[in-house]
Amino acid sequence: MKIIVKKFGGTSVADVGRIRNVARLLKRFQERNPDTKLVVVVSAMAGETNKLLSLARSCVENPAVRELDVLVATGEQVTVALLAMSLIEMGLPARSLLAQQARITTDRQYMNAKIESINAASVAAVLEQGQIAVVAGFQGVDDEGNVTTLGRGGSDITAVALAAALKAEACYIYTDVEGVFTADPRLCPKARLMKYVSHEEMLELANLGAKVLHARSVYFAMMYGVPMVVLSTFNPEGGATWVVEEEKLVEKPVVTGITYRTDDAKLTIHRLRHASKALGSIFSRLAEENISIDMITQTGLEDGYTSVSFTVPDEKSSRALGLLQEAVPALGAEGVSIERDIAKVSAVGVGMQYHTGVAARLFEALAAEQIEVQMIGTSEIKISVVVPRKYCEVAVRALHKAFIEMSPELVAEPERVRVEARQ
Amino acid sequence: MKIIVKKFGGTSVADVGRIRNVARLLKRFQERNPDTKLVVVVSAMAGETNKLLSLARSCVENPAVRELDVLVATGEQVTVALLAMSLIEMGLPARSLLAQQARITTDRQYMNAKIESINAASVAAVLEQGQIAVVAGFQGVDDEGNVTTLGRGGSDITAVALAAALKAEACYIYTDVEGVFTADPRLCPKARLMKYVSHEEMLELANLGAKVLHARSVYFAMMYGVPMVVLSTFNPEGGATWVVEEEKLVEKPVVTGITYRTDDAKLTIHRLRHASKALGSIFSRLAEENISIDMITQTGLEDGYTSVSFTVPDEKSSRALGLLQEAVPALGAEGVSIERDIAKVSAVGVGMQYHTGVAARLFEALAAEQIEVQMIGTSEIKISVVVPRKYCEVAVRALHKAFIEMSPELVAEPERVRVEARQ
Repeated sequence: MKIIVKKFGGTSVADVGRIRNVARLLKRFQERNPDTKLVVVVSAMAGETNKLLSLARSCVENPAVRELDVLVATGEQVTVALLAMSLIEMGLPARSLLAQQARITTDRQYMNAKIESINAASVAAVLEQGQIAVVAGFQGVDDEGNVTTLGRGGSDITAVALAAALKAEACYIYTDVEGVFTADPRLCPKARLMKYVSHEEMLELANLGAKVLHARSVYFAMMYGVPMVVLSTFNPEGGATWVVEEEKLVEKPVVTGITYRTDDAKLTIHRLRHASKALGSIFSRLAEENISIDMITQTGLEDGYTSVSFTVPDEKSSRALGLLQEAVPALGAEGVSIERDIAKVSAVGVGMQYHTGVAARLFEALAAEQIEVQMIGTSEIKISVVVPRKYCEVAVRALHKAFIEMSPELVAEPERVRVEARQ
Repeated sequence: MKIIVKKFGGTSVADVGRIRNVARLLKRFQERNPDTKLVVVVSAMAGETNKLLSLARSCVENPAVRELDVLVATGEQVTVALLAMSLIEMGLPARSLLAQQARITTDRQYMNAKIESINAASVAAVLEQGQIAVVAGFQGVDDEGNVTTLGRGGSDITAVALAAALKAEACYIYTDVEGVFTADPRLCPKARLMKYVSHEEMLELANLGAKVLHARSVYFAMMYGVPMVVLSTFNPEGGATWVVEEEKLVEKPVVTGITYRTDDAKLTIHRLRHASKALGSIFSRLAEENISIDMITQTGLEDGYTSVSFTVPDEKSSRALGLLQEAVPALGAEGVSIERDIAKVSAVGVGMQYHTGVAARLFEALAAEQIEVQMIGTSEIKISVVVPRKYCEVAVRALHKAFIEMSPELVAEPERVRVEARQ
């Protein structure tokens, strides 16, 4: 049984007109690919989840999370019903499935549950009966039958997990853009659509600011080797990005994409003695408060003191600053400062691990624009720098020019990823 | 375990303010009755079900019924979540249960499903953990896990069925009136609240026009001997009607209540020969079209011909008229006529079976008001007449005066039905 999973986000099903548009798109696909079995995963109508959360908060101050999940799960239930009835009206046999019916089992972490298992038998049974399975995204049930939801990016995760469980050929993620771009096109007019990208690169790109896919779903796809396709609901023939296993890529560009984030803040502890011991206790304290630390740099000063800077999510930076200020006397440091006007700009590419001189080229490109690099961090397939936020856009364009516009566009199509010819 | 089931309709939970009001009412009850375990059944917020049905119809012309049920079931899912979180916020442990979780199994007649079984174990487990069980009314699941809904009066049925399955002491139906009145108070200012009524009477009253309870739920309560209490959410101390087994009533008034319906039409076939045979074929034809016939009268004419009148639901009267007109030539009748401006007025009471002269008193009362009786029908505990619709109000008042205002109000309280002292 050749199976394709297609997922449509909230913007794609924002009203009944758009739901019918999705039904027409599926009908066209099914007519062109009569032998392919379709599993469709949908989100709630755009804005619906927030509306339900507001309703809860207008009712009680601190809604119990178990009940919040019961409430917000209705969002997807509405869309699966409407999409299934639209398909049926167009002559395509279809059947909606809620998480309970699709047997998507999660842990009991309400509002941020993790999928533990999918018993694909019930979805497969629907497909075998010649029906399109329309599955509610974002939701699950725990082993006692409680309703759970998967948190941000949840519907993508549902789609990828179903694709893995059903051994589907690919998981198509329909969104409002044509695919993943080499940089944010709003910042960088020369950004171009990526045709292929490896799971590993996509995971870094998502973590480092690319918004089109959520990192958790990419991680899931990487773990289970599910090819993902990102494309536009409103212009499905307008291009697509394939996210595939690295070994299936014929060419491995040094840099695949440039991303940025502006939601970090930089904290600095000035003139610290016995840095290692002191940092151990500070970082433990931050971890206790669930504040994750991203980049760290340490500057040795001439007189034996050290200054240490690190970034934390901006939303938690005030709390982190408070904790550091409390700790300063005990640490014997001179003081603490915070800088919020920063941006983290990153270059990602699997080819980086086989090439030297990437950091040099990056510094040259930024220096040519007089951009001061405040911090730097690297992994095998990425290099990130912290720069003043006002230079974010210039930095993205400079790196895009240095690494991507200078390179030839990848045109050779890796044969093994070509699952399906006709969109 | 002493269990009480309380059900709140759509008006009682129409917005978050009213949902919190219900939570406060339950808190007060629980404080006064700390040993009673509470099961709460709620409907969708008033208007929500119709809004969802309109949404479906704005999407497709003829929504598939399976998917309609998936859609409208979200209405109750929203209210159980909001009520459960309101109770928790007020310090009362609570847990919402959907039909799947409460194991309410129905047949597969979407939009009008019948409850086949309730496995009370999961609701009982919630109660044993010291939590209030907040159960979604109106919905069920079939034996394959498909979502179903119970049709009109569905939440009342859920409540009564749960009370039966849990062997609850009583099922309280909270609505927007203080209970069941001896006649519609808008028509009959002297109508008074019934304190006690038997299931059998209540079933007739519901069938014959009393709107406060739906006949199907009363039938369920009668079958399983569940005492029902009807009272107002907005004035819970303002009175209540107990619906109990007939043998528990100390006094059995001849007439308990007067009801009316104005949603029937009267069809007449004029000058028919061989009436029996002809009527057999006509009524079969109507039954095929799912048109139910209520009252029938046959008038023998002097020349051996017969005229036959019967009532049908007004919404189906045009279809019925068409069928009769087609049949007239074959029947050899003179013609067919329809009268829509009629009302059916009924007197109901378990004591009627032990008293003679009820019909005589009824005719006298109507004659005193110069009201012509067009049709009459009786059963052991009711007597119904069809009158011109313009006399409906006068007839209700006349019968109320003749049968109820003349009788002493029932004040003795049957001991065995006093389940609980403090509302």
